[in-house]
Amino acid sequence: MPTSVKSVLPVVLLGCGGVGRHLLHHIVSCRPLHAKQGVAIQVVGVGDSSSLLVADDVHSGHCQLFKNPEASGKVIEAATTLGRSTGLVLVDCSATYDTVGLLKAAVDHGCCIALANKKPLTGAYEDFEKLVSNFRRIRFESTVGAGLPVIASVTRIIASGDPISRIVSSLSGTLGYVMSELEDGKKFSEVVKTAKSLGYTEPDPRDDLGGMDVARKVGSLYPSELGPDAMSTKDFLESGVAQLDKSMEERVKAASLKGNVLRYVCEIRSTGCQVGIRELPKNSALGRLRGSDNVVEIYSRCYESSPLVIQGAGAGNDTTAAGVLADILDLQDLFQKMA
Amino acid sequence: MPTSVKSVLPVVLLGCGGVGRHLLHHIVSCRPLHAKQGVAIQVVGVGDSSSLLVADDVHSGHCQLFKNPEASGKVIEAATTLGRSTGLVLVDCSATYDTVGLLKAAVDHGCCIALANKKPLTGAYEDFEKLVSNFRRIRFESTVGAGLPVIASVTRIIASGDPISRIVSSLSGTLGYVMSELEDGKKFSEVVKTAKSLGYTEPDPRDDLGGMDVARKVGSLYPSELGPDAMSTKDFLESGVAQLDKSMEERVKAASLKGNVLRYVCEIRSTGCQVGIRELPKNSALGRLRGSDNVVEIYSRCYESSPLVIQGAGAGNDTTAAGVLADILDLQDLFQKMA
Ligand SMILES: NC(=O)c1ccc[n+]([C@@H]2O[C@H](COP(=O)([O-])OP(=O)(O)OC[C@H]3O[C@@H](n4cnc5c(N)ncnc54)[C@H](OP(=O)(O)O)[C@@H]3O)[C@@H](O)[C@H]2O)c1
Ligand SMILES: NC(=O)c1ccc[n+]([C@@H]2O[C@H](COP(=O)([O-])OP(=O)(O)OC[C@H]3O[C@@H](n4cnc5c(N)ncnc54)[C@H](OP(=O)(O)O)[C@@H]3O)[C@@H](O)[C@H]2O)c1
Repeated sequence: MPTSVKSVLPVVLLGCGGVGRHLLHHIVSCRPLHAKQGVAIQVVGVGDSSSLLVADDVHSGHCQLFKNPEASGKVIEAATTLGRSTGLVLVDCSATYDTVGLLKAAVDHGCCIALANKKPLTGAYEDFEKLVSNFRRIRFESTVGAGLPVIASVTRIIASGDPISRIVSSLSGTLGYVMSELEDGKKFSEVVKTAKSLGYTEPDPRDDLGGMDVARKVGSLYPSELGPDAMSTKDFLESGVAQLDKSMEERVKAASLKGNVLRYVCEIRSTGCQVGIRELPKNSALGRLRGSDNVVEIYSRCYESSPLVIQGAGAGNDTTAAGVLADILDLQDLFQKMA
Repeated sequence: MPTSVKSVLPVVLLGCGGVGRHLLHHIVSCRPLHAKQGVAIQVVGVGDSSSLLVADDVHSGHCQLFKNPEASGKVIEAATTLGRSTGLVLVDCSATYDTVGLLKAAVDHGCCIALANKKPLTGAYEDFEKLVSNFRRIRFESTVGAGLPVIASVTRIIASGDPISRIVSSLSGTLGYVMSELEDGKKFSEVVKTAKSLGYTEPDPRDDLGGMDVARKVGSLYPSELGPDAMSTKDFLESGVAQLDKSMEERVKAASLKGNVLRYVCEIRSTGCQVGIRELPKNSALGRLRGSDNVVEIYSRCYESSPLVIQGAGAGNDTTAAGVLADILDLQDLFQKMA
């Protein structure tokens, strides 16, 4: 009777902001659905930057609040007790690097990890290696393109021995929108201002145009003379950005003559990673992209001439939290009791 | 030490044709890769329509051959012994409905199931219900769009409580090619003949144009007067198909006037499933589709205005086998021994 075999998976949530709150909501509203699959997710602790709320008794709902540094000690305690027995998933929905110590300790105790927060994976290389050392016990779908099934798909492809040769992607909704609007002959400065008025950009659009959200080593869309050290956001929008119109128009036209369009893409090959403006065929998945969707093209032996393409909304608290919950449910398989 | 924790998962393979052979090849060539993740897949039996080869001793390589009906008995024996202990995955790469009895017996013994063969899921509804009754123990990625991560993505979305409102897809490479070629003003009959000469169609192209590969309840692209009962393949290609040119040209033009294109799609909503020619916006993922790629658009709360799109090659023995292997590796998580 599969539906009566309850497998309870305890979860500690670090970070309870936009994504974390949505996750708690999803966990509660999915209870009946998960019960049908014989699964129950039980939140035994929720932490923010200063404290941790621990469920003493999940039935009575009795809780205790611990302040740091005691709070971290409580997380380790739960990891030590539960890690190798019932299992424990440490979920990081914070936006800080500070959680990495706790996450590494959890790995040592056999716990699983689910991340929306990309910082622990993108800091020191030793941290990354440690966190992924038991690869079936860590999931981080929502660190790339929110809930889009990019990591899950890449993991499946690798697991099946199909070697990935390159991944080309447009992972910034803002830059995706800007580049695709240019095709219609609109001025760069107009497109940037419209993007800002639609709420697609950061308060200072240069935070997006600098590309820092996509990778550390980037091709910025503006020169340093127009940067934050040289002029205010107001001046940039009123006069600075228009200085880029002509050169951008020329680049768009030159590309168009070759049947290409400009896209701001990240390309990963075995030889390294490149981020910046690229000319791509109008007819490729990335070339056809309009609006603020994220797109990822994966090339491998199986997807050689025509890549595996995954496309959709790559941001939003709801979607990001949904991706984390799907990760937790996958991890739950590791702790299923045999019927 | 995660890499030394060997979790051995026994597999019985039913069907050793194009897909099955590729799967065996992938399993062997992935051994070093899987070992790094502390995982080993061990093929303990391989069967075809008449017999089963059983590995008596995987170390010496000693095997025994059993003919039907004894062969089926041997599969059940393995299921009974291994199902609830080490776990056993019954992999169906046959192209028959005849395996369904074995598959159901395996479910009863707590075994897992991985399918490339869609027939067991699309026959009697009771069979379907039985097979998916323990949903985390069955995988069937390769029954839809070969290895494209469609089922994995749909499963993730459902698991996260994000309700799917509809799925619109183009899952026939042949019909996808035919419909997109019509846009360029080519004659229907010419496109069909070219598709045949490129090897995209069955020997009798009407097998594709009838749409039977996409679903049972379908909109055929030819009337019964041009069907296999009324004329030979040769006559159909030489004179029959040209009779459809004019009406098809008119439909393409009428759609084009509204900014639409024709696509042969399958749409699933809670109210039912429709398969046939549809007018779609030129600028939708399906409308932009060229060539023989499969495309699936998934609409849900998280993917409402702009759907999650998955696109790529939806056929091929290599890709299909890769999808099955990724499924087996996912199932393996259910039998991981705690470190
Ligand atoms: N929203 C999206 O579209 C999206 C998409 C993909 C990925 N993500 C990622 O998801 C993560 C969460 O995003 P968000 O929008 O929810 O951020 P947020 O609203 O800023 O929330 C961050 C939360 O983390 C807590 N926190 C800070 N330091 C902590 C620590 N040392 N230990 C535990 N908790 C700590 C904060 O608590 P205090 O209030 O005490 O500071 C706050 O509750 C981020 O890493 C983000 O990059 C978001
Ligand atoms: N190739 C693709 O692109 C693709 C894509 C998606 C899904 N699929 C599905 O994958 C499956 C396999 O395709 P394929 O191209 O490999 O087919 P195939 O080459 O025709 O091979 C079928 C195999 O199944 C065996 N078989 C028949 N009845 C059996 C039974 N009762 N028990 C065990 N084995 C039996 C056959 O053995 P005998 O020689 O003794 O008859 C043969 O070895 C099909 O269901 C197909 O629809 C294929």
